[in-house]
Amino acid sequence: MINYQRILEIIKANNVFVITTHINPDGDAIGSELALAYFLQKMNKEFKIINHSSTPENFVFLDQENLIHKYDSSFDEYIMNADVVIAVDFNTLGRVKSMMEIFKKTKAYKIIIDHHRNPQNFVDEIFSDVDAPATGILIYELIKAYDSNFIDKKTADALYTAIMTDTGSFRFERITPEVHIIVADLISRGTNPTYIYNKVYNEINPEKLRLLGVTISNIKLEMDGKIAYMVIDRELLKKYVPSEEEFDVDGFVNYCLSLKSTIVGMLFFEIKNGVKVSLRSKEKFPVNLLAEKFGGGGHLNAAGIRLEGEKLNDVISKVINQTIEDLKNYERDLS
Amino acid sequence: MINYQRILEIIKANNVFVITTHINPDGDAIGSELALAYFLQKMNKEFKIINHSSTPENFVFLDQENLIHKYDSSFDEYIMNADVVIAVDFNTLGRVKSMMEIFKKTKAYKIIIDHHRNPQNFVDEIFSDVDAPATGILIYELIKAYDSNFIDKKTADALYTAIMTDTGSFRFERITPEVHIIVADLISRGTNPTYIYNKVYNEINPEKLRLLGVTISNIKLEMDGKIAYMVIDRELLKKYVPSEEEFDVDGFVNYCLSLKSTIVGMLFFEIKNGVKVSLRSKEKFPVNLLAEKFGGGGHLNAAGIRLEGEKLNDVISKVINQTIEDLKNYERDLS
Repeated sequence: MINYQRILEIIKANNVFVITTHINPDGDAIGSELALAYFLQKMNKEFKIINHSSTPENFVFLDQENLIHKYDSSFDEYIMNADVVIAVDFNTLGRVKSMMEIFKKTKAYKIIIDHHRNPQNFVDEIFSDVDAPATGILIYELIKAYDSNFIDKKTADALYTAIMTDTGSFRFERITPEVHIIVADLISRGTNPTYIYNKVYNEINPEKLRLLGVTISNIKLEMDGKIAYMVIDRELLKKYVPSEEEFDVDGFVNYCLSLKSTIVGMLFFEIKNGVKVSLRSKEKFPVNLLAEKFGGGGHLNAAGIRLEGEKLNDVISKVINQTIEDLKNYERDLS
Repeated sequence: MINYQRILEIIKANNVFVITTHINPDGDAIGSELALAYFLQKMNKEFKIINHSSTPENFVFLDQENLIHKYDSSFDEYIMNADVVIAVDFNTLGRVKSMMEIFKKTKAYKIIIDHHRNPQNFVDEIFSDVDAPATGILIYELIKAYDSNFIDKKTADALYTAIMTDTGSFRFERITPEVHIIVADLISRGTNPTYIYNKVYNEINPEKLRLLGVTISNIKLEMDGKIAYMVIDRELLKKYVPSEEEFDVDGFVNYCLSLKSTIVGMLFFEIKNGVKVSLRSKEKFPVNLLAEKFGGGGHLNAAGIRLEGEKLNDVISKVINQTIEDLKNYERDLS
């Protein structure tokens, strides 16, 4: 249980805030940052949201007031002089990439608000609840602990987006009755679920949709289908989406889990100088532990690895081999 | 607002019940039938669920007690002698197909419990709420109006499945705070959202998944992408899923709507003796009115057509032409 009163104390006692989140921010990262920013607005605090990555196109609609900035060194002075830096939806310093140095250097008081396992101790105080299915839930509780009237429509939209996206539309683990009660409250404050869903998921372009189709049609199976994986190499990417170097293909990997046989699903995405691997699992198979063996991390059922300077086929073969070994151990432990 | 007390009166005053639903039953049809049956069980009533279609494989897990029967003439005597026939999740007689004759013939008291528009008057009493996003909501309210303790885990699972599937995981139109409050209640009674989702959507076989991939990759656009459509002909079906004559491809058509440009999405599925067309739309474009022009029907944003004895290419061209005309009128009315 998070001590929300303590977070409120920190907010009340200070004036200048920086909010930041992880590389390649997802809906929970962006939604949580914005909801927190709207809260600071109402508390008459000075603040900036500064991220390593720019906001993915499908979440830009949430940031009507253009509160989110992409980091460059011109923000260093602001960050150096801030009273508090709030790290939202991540818990290892490496995830802020280009902001690592300034994050370490600033004398601001640093806190984490997050729901991922095994936080690194690189801040002054950690507010973590690993039972929460989204960081958005924690921001909701924080604002409610102060004054639930502060949850206006724009805040509700941001929080709904955070919770909806991070729970796979309310279907992943850790969904409790309370999550749906919170969502009911957000809708009663004006959020339109159909509108948000369409904005987040239904605005892709035909080329990306066709790439999804081709990727699905080429799905590969190992261990009688217990492992299902997809591959997007540079050639495929250039054929369908030549304009983009790298984009969010997180949604793609979930299709691996739609197979009855599958316990572990993977997407190998060849990036400019290496390979990004997205991992998903069913049951209690811990893809976060698998990811950690390659320097990645995440949750029990959803994790990621980023291997720079390595070749696609090498990565596929070593990750698949490790997965086979882990799966065999998992099945032995079950029986 | 439905008069639930009146439905309870009918149930209390009678002893032998038949529950039935439409051809190709979806999650809302099967879930609502089962939840209603579990209620009749607790009321110590005699009943049978009798459907024209067999239960789709992905919903069989809900029917642990094998309560659902596929209709044949051996059930005629039971239906003839029943006190009440309850038609669940449909409102036109044609939707019971092979059961039409016996449905007309039986002297049983007939009622409809449903949420579709424009009910046909082929029963004694109609209990309809077109604002409900699923018939499952109505069955929930009915049981709750009698005794909410009757909503045990198996009932909650059936109702959760009904509501989750018919709302596209809580994202289609007509989602209110009350829907999420009901879902919270179902989860508090033991329903596991992850388990249900995996059972319903994540047990497909690799061939069907590859067929989905190929179908998506071949998506076609008309009117600058305002219309997006997919085609599955016999050849494609035989290549990937040779064992099946016809199966539920309802999930496929939703991918058309994932395009930013799309207002209307369609899937043309060549069946043994004709073509099945699934229609979906965004905004207020009424695909039910479009479907009605070809003898089909449905909701504002989701409808279907079944044309027997017609050729695939003829159907594609006449439905697309009609859609272009309807879309032009729709856009003219908007401006």
